Amino acid sequence: MLGNNHALKIASQKKTPKPNNTADSSLYVSRPLLPDLSRLQEYLEQIWASQWVTNNGSLHIELEKRLSNKLKVPTAMLFNNGTIGLMVALKLFDLPSGSDVITTPMTFAATAHSISWNGLKPVFVDVTEDNLTIDPEAVEAAITANTSAILAVHCYGCICDHEALSAIARKHRLKLIYDAAHAFGSTLNGQSIATLGGASVFSFHATKLFNTLEGGLLTSPNAADQETIYLLRNFGIRDEEQVVSVGINGKLNEVQSAIGLLNLELFEDERLKRRALRGRYLEILKGIDGVIVQETPDNVDNSEQYFLVRIDPLVYGKTRDDLKVALEAKKIYARKYFHPICTDYECYREYPIISVRERPYVEKAKKEVLCLPFHSGVENRHLQIVRDVFRR
Amino acid sequence: MLGNNHALKIASQKKTPKPNNTADSSLYVSRPLLPDLSRLQEYLEQIWASQWVTNNGSLHIELEKRLSNKLKVPTAMLFNNGTIGLMVALKLFDLPSGSDVITTPMTFAATAHSISWNGLKPVFVDVTEDNLTIDPEAVEAAITANTSAILAVHCYGCICDHEALSAIARKHRLKLIYDAAHAFGSTLNGQSIATLGGASVFSFHATKLFNTLEGGLLTSPNAADQETIYLLRNFGIRDEEQVVSVGINGKLNEVQSAIGLLNLELFEDERLKRRALRGRYLEILKGIDGVIVQETPDNVDNSEQYFLVRIDPLVYGKTRDDLKVALEAKKIYARKYFHPICTDYECYREYPIISVRERPYVEKAKKEVLCLPFHSGVENRHLQIVRDVFRR
Repeated sequence: MLGNNHALKIASQKKTPKPNNTADSSLYVSRPLLPDLSRLQEYLEQIWASQWVTNNGSLHIELEKRLSNKLKVPTAMLFNNGTIGLMVALKLFDLPSGSDVITTPMTFAATAHSISWNGLKPVFVDVTEDNLTIDPEAVEAAITANTSAILAVHCYGCICDHEALSAIARKHRLKLIYDAAHAFGSTLNGQSIATLGGASVFSFHATKLFNTLEGGLLTSPNAADQETIYLLRNFGIRDEEQVVSVGINGKLNEVQSAIGLLNLELFEDERLKRRALRGRYLEILKGIDGVIVQETPDNVDNSEQYFLVRIDPLVYGKTRDDLKVALEAKKIYARKYFHPICTDYECYREYPIISVRERPYVEKAKKEVLCLPFHSGVENRHLQIVRDVFRR
Repeated sequence: MLGNNHALKIASQKKTPKPNNTADSSLYVSRPLLPDLSRLQEYLEQIWASQWVTNNGSLHIELEKRLSNKLKVPTAMLFNNGTIGLMVALKLFDLPSGSDVITTPMTFAATAHSISWNGLKPVFVDVTEDNLTIDPEAVEAAITANTSAILAVHCYGCICDHEALSAIARKHRLKLIYDAAHAFGSTLNGQSIATLGGASVFSFHATKLFNTLEGGLLTSPNAADQETIYLLRNFGIRDEEQVVSVGINGKLNEVQSAIGLLNLELFEDERLKRRALRGRYLEILKGIDGVIVQETPDNVDNSEQYFLVRIDPLVYGKTRDDLKVALEAKKIYARKYFHPICTDYECYREYPIISVRERPYVEKAKKEVLCLPFHSGVENRHLQIVRDVFRR
C-alpha cells in the first residue's frame, strides 16, 4: 500500500524549507515566518469557542480588511493558495476558451499551469536583460487575433515595466493581470503594485515573507470586482436560495487567517532585517567580476522576497552550478529559481519563446540565476562562508 | 473600500455552522468536530520546531497513511478541499476537452462546477426514488458519443447503485468517478466505498463528520495512480530538475493535517453518537403520514453524515418549507439540502434533466427533502421540539 509514497517524499523534501536549529546547521533559501504559539493559542481558543472555522469567518474578514488597507487597494480577497487565486483571476475577465495568454517562461510553474488548467493557452515570451521580467517588445511581437490577456510576473520581486505593458494592453484591448507572488508590499513610484493592471495575485505560501502556511490574495483596483471574485471563490453561491455562476472553493480557513493576522504584525520587522541583509550581500558580492547583483531601482520599494545574483561564467570563470555545489559543500542551500523555466517542462517543451532578439535572453539568464538564503536566520558566519565561496 | 463585504458577509453567514453554546440556544444542522486544543498545541510545537509547515510534511504523510488504512484503499491522497480533489480526479482520466460528464443535479454545487471549470460539460440525469442517488437507467439514456465519464454522488451518504453503474461504465467504456463527499467511512456489502469505480473524492469541510476545517481526499483502487495524482496536486513537479505535466496546488498544510490526525481519533465515537441519534429520530418520526425517513439498507455501513427526511405535502398536509419555518421559530435550523438543485442555478438553467420518467423524479424530491440537525450536540430537549413540530 502507498508503495510510491516513499520515493515521492524523498523528491518533495528537496522542495521544502527545512529547519535551521542548532542540531542542523544547514541554511536554506527560505525560512517560514511564524508567529508565537502563545499568541496563536488565543486565536484558536476564540475560533474553537465560536465553532466558526471557515466560510468567510470573522478573522478572514478582518485579515482581508487589513490587507486592503496595507496594500491600499479596494479589493483584496483571500485564497487558499496563490494558484487558485490565479485561476480565479483568469476567470474574472471571462477570457474566450482556448485564447492565448502571453506570459513569461521565467516564473514558478503555477503561472503557466493556471492558464492551461483554465482551458487557455500560455504563450511564452522573452524577458528583459534589465530585471528579468517580461519584455514588452516581445509581448507586442507575440500578439495575434487569438490573444486575450497578458499575465506578467513581478519575478523575484522585480517590478514589471507597467507603463509599457499597460499601453500595449490598452492598444490591443487585452486584459493585463499580474502574478505578484513575490511582490507583497512593493510599491512603484509610491503606488502599491496591488493596484496595477486589472488584477494581481499574491502568494502567501510558507516560502513567502508574508505567509499563511499556504494562501494567496487576489487584488483589483475595482471595488465592483468583489462580488464576482466572491462568487468565483465560493461555488457561485449568492445565498441559500441562489447559485448564480460557476465557481470553485478558494476559501481560506480561520486558523490560517489567524496566522496571517499575527504574521502581518511581524512582516515589516522581518522585511527590514532582510533589507539590511541585502545590504550586507551587496557589500560582500559587489565588484566581483562576473557576479551581477540585482539592484533595486530608486522608484521601487522592494518586497525583500528574494536575493538574486546572476553568474556570467565567461567572466566569472565558473558556472552558477559550480557555485551552488560549492555552497552546498558548506551546507548553504541556494536555489536556481526558476530553473527549469516553463519551456523546459515536458508539457511545454514544444512551445516557442517569442523574442525580439536573435536568441531569447531568458535562455542565457536561466543558466545564470541563483537565489541566496534570504531571511533573518542568515548570520554573519553564513555571510562569511558565502563571501569566501564567491571570492575563493 | 470593501463596500460590498458587509452584504457578502451577511449572505455567507447563512451558509455557515454557528455556535451552540449556552448563550445561544440555536441548533444548527451541523457542528464541527474539533480536537482538544491542548492536544493540537503539542502538534503545533512540533511543526513550529521543524519549520516544515506544508509541502508533503510528515503529518500530511502520516494522515494519508492512516486514511489509506482506515478506508482500506491503496491510494488515499489529501487535498486542500474536496472541490480541488474533484477537479484533479477529473483530470486523472484525461477526459477529452468539451466531452460530457453525466452527473446528478441533486448535489452540492462543487460536483457540477468542477466539471465545468475543467472544460467539460455536465449532463444532468434523474435520481432514484429509492435513495435519491443517480438513476442508472437515466444514465444509460443520457449516453452519447460525446460522453466520457459518469460522476455519481453518494448523496446524503446514500450509496449509489454501484453494480448497475459499473456495468454501464464498462459497457460504454466510460470512466466512473464517485463524489463521496458525504460518505466517509461507508461500506457497501462490507467493501469500503473508497475503492469503488475509478476514483472517489471525499470532503473534509467543517460541515463533515470527519473534517480538517477545509480539506478533501482523493482515493483510487489503483496504487499506480499515486504518482499522477501527486503531480496533478503539486504543479507537475517531479523534482528540482523536472516538471513533467500540468498541475495545480492541492496541498494540505501541516496544521490541518494535525487536526485531521486528532479528529480521526474522535471520528468513530461521534459516528456512534450520531447513529444513536438516527435511532432516536426514527422513533420520533416514523409512522407520521407523509414523513418519509431515509432508512439505511442492511448492506451499507452508514457514514452518519446527514439525517434526511422527505415531506410529502399531499399526505402530510403541510410542505417541507412550512416545517422548516416552524422549526426555525423554535431556533432549530434544518437545511433544504440540496436546494436549489443544479438545474435551478442561473448557469445551468437551460440544461435538461434526462429521465426515463415522464417527469424527472428529482423535481418532486427537491421540494420534499429536509436535513435535520445531526451531531452529538443534539439533546433530548431538541428532539422533543422536533417531535412536537412534526406531530403538531
